[in-house]
Amino acid sequence: MTDSVARQLERLKRGADEVLVEVDFEKKIASGKTLRIKAGFDPTAPDLHLGHTVIINKLKQFQDEGHHILFLIGDFTGMIGDPTGKSATRPPLTKEDVAKNAESYAEQVFKILDPEKTKVVFNSTWMSEFNAADLIQLAGKHTVARMLERDDFNKRYTGGKAIAIHEFLYPLIQGYDSVALKADVELGGTDQKFNLLVGRQLQEVYGQPPQVVMTMPLLEGLDGVQKMSKSLNNYICVSDEPNDMFGKIMSLSDKLMWRYFELLSFREMSEIDAWKKACEDGAENPRNVKVKLALEIVERFHDEAAAEKSRAAFESRFKHGQVPDNIRSISIECGKSLLVANALKEAGLTVSTSESYRMMKQGAVKVNGQRTDDKRAVLELGTESLIQVGKRKFSKITIT
Amino acid sequence: MTDSVARQLERLKRGADEVLVEVDFEKKIASGKTLRIKAGFDPTAPDLHLGHTVIINKLKQFQDEGHHILFLIGDFTGMIGDPTGKSATRPPLTKEDVAKNAESYAEQVFKILDPEKTKVVFNSTWMSEFNAADLIQLAGKHTVARMLERDDFNKRYTGGKAIAIHEFLYPLIQGYDSVALKADVELGGTDQKFNLLVGRQLQEVYGQPPQVVMTMPLLEGLDGVQKMSKSLNNYICVSDEPNDMFGKIMSLSDKLMWRYFELLSFREMSEIDAWKKACEDGAENPRNVKVKLALEIVERFHDEAAAEKSRAAFESRFKHGQVPDNIRSISIECGKSLLVANALKEAGLTVSTSESYRMMKQGAVKVNGQRTDDKRAVLELGTESLIQVGKRKFSKITIT
Repeated sequence: MTDSVARQLERLKRGADEVLVEVDFEKKIASGKTLRIKAGFDPTAPDLHLGHTVIINKLKQFQDEGHHILFLIGDFTGMIGDPTGKSATRPPLTKEDVAKNAESYAEQVFKILDPEKTKVVFNSTWMSEFNAADLIQLAGKHTVARMLERDDFNKRYTGGKAIAIHEFLYPLIQGYDSVALKADVELGGTDQKFNLLVGRQLQEVYGQPPQVVMTMPLLEGLDGVQKMSKSLNNYICVSDEPNDMFGKIMSLSDKLMWRYFELLSFREMSEIDAWKKACEDGAENPRNVKVKLALEIVERFHDEAAAEKSRAAFESRFKHGQVPDNIRSISIECGKSLLVANALKEAGLTVSTSESYRMMKQGAVKVNGQRTDDKRAVLELGTESLIQVGKRKFSKITIT
Repeated sequence: MTDSVARQLERLKRGADEVLVEVDFEKKIASGKTLRIKAGFDPTAPDLHLGHTVIINKLKQFQDEGHHILFLIGDFTGMIGDPTGKSATRPPLTKEDVAKNAESYAEQVFKILDPEKTKVVFNSTWMSEFNAADLIQLAGKHTVARMLERDDFNKRYTGGKAIAIHEFLYPLIQGYDSVALKADVELGGTDQKFNLLVGRQLQEVYGQPPQVVMTMPLLEGLDGVQKMSKSLNNYICVSDEPNDMFGKIMSLSDKLMWRYFELLSFREMSEIDAWKKACEDGAENPRNVKVKLALEIVERFHDEAAAEKSRAAFESRFKHGQVPDNIRSISIECGKSLLVANALKEAGLTVSTSESYRMMKQGAVKVNGQRTDDKRAVLELGTESLIQVGKRKFSKITIT
């Protein structure tokens, strides 16, 4: 293996959970050919958060190495809706919905990917040519037993929860997309591993060299525990305002910061590792490194000026302006993240948790300058936060 | 319920294994409407035996009551072939194959059904209009768990034998045929019960009144034990020559004869029951009644003259001609059916079972005038058979 191949492999495998099969991947990269890299995305209205960009960042890394990116929007099944008729919330998408959503995807992902070198494709292009007989042929290529090995299907089947038969067809269609696209590599989250492997298997059945499957970890949300998701309210949207984005990144625990660096930053790992070592040695303050991450992310989704401005705003909130110069710093030792409501009481900013909730509800509570009205909001273990209640009460709270 | 409705119900339910749901059936019949009666048949080359005609006879009974017969040839899936690619023996049928097979069906079934009142339909008519999205919609109407309740699927799944996913789609397509045809009643063998019920369920999903499902028993073959089938060599083909057909029916055990009367004869049950009683009382010889059955069946598939001729030929083989006037009658008591090979030895026609097999293999053994070279051939309990070995050795053997 040449040095340049080895360096490319190292960069491409950075942060990946699994590469299947690794030796195939090495051969494909070593061949020097331009590879066809597939990643599939939901056709529903995209409002991407940083968790989603882990895959897109990886596509960007492949793109930077000269490979060909196939950004697949799986619109075919989305346009079918829910055939069981049970979910009123999943109406079928129209052609117009799909076009609109694709545009919205483009607006967001082309902040990362080079539009000139990215092909956006829709699986309705080939699937709408499929008739019932073609789909039956496809369904003949896989077995019920193997499908029931998929984790979620297995749990539902053994748990007595209904699986409608069309749900067995969707992984096959997703797999067939790899055949239609002649994909060399498919990227997806670890939760997509089964489906990605179906693509690998179907390509072999259809006489193609099987794609390499690369799974990326699901990014933890701001809480550092659960995966980033809207419903858990622990996310950073790519459309967040610069100040919000900056502030949220600054609220990360130090440990989580390194994880975000690995999966979200485009800096070389060698540079990141050097900073990490400096922090561990006490030669560098993690807060300064976190600022670099925040600047990089804000610049990616806005621009350099906005990044600088949000840094200044963030620091001014701490250093001057509405915040008193000398505010009380307290440290709460609880060994894990702590509800903001509890922290307020501990710090003496409120007299009870129920007063905390009331103040939060009234919009009187700010954490690092951001209004915080979610009862479930927490201060992370290892973070220092500037807390404000009403106009005059301030505290710096460190959770240890 | 009027007397005429009651009589119609009795005639239509004759011999049926199950009627689901019976009260629906009574309502449909009592309504006085012309009902749409569906039965589905394989699109592969038909060479019908009497076992297959149990369903066709039932269609004839519905037809005689004025109902509308839909003779469905399930050609859609037959034209797909085996999508797993495992079975080299199941090549896809062409349109021409299907047309040829349909003609062959017509030739055979129109000896029973009135062609003027029978509509032959092909499910490719509506299924070839289905696209992949339509099939996904259909697949959403049923669950994996319910499909795995089907006996044969369950056995294969729990036994670790592969079920390809398209096999789950076939019962749905068969069920959808009932929707397309707006069937009021569907007939099938007891082994088809699950699939017939899928039709019932899908009609409800598609907003139609659910069809009544009527299952007919699988007719036992000449051995009286296993179901009639080519592979067990215990069958009477509807294309058998008159003499063969007559002779095979005369070889039935008395017990099996009554079963055949119920499922194959168009005589009223009252008449059959009277004969049965007469035989039990010793007022009638079962052999004479069996002749009536043989005449009816031969006449159905050939004509009256052929039936009379085959009766005469059968009787002459016993009474005159090549058969000596006085041949030894022996009775073998074994309480069950007996292999011909063993009977030959018992009767002293051969010196050993292996000589019996040799003679059979040479074509030197006749049972009731028919060459018998199948090692597994048996004489049924309760029958009297004329056995011939070579040109000169005869015996009448009764198994008791």
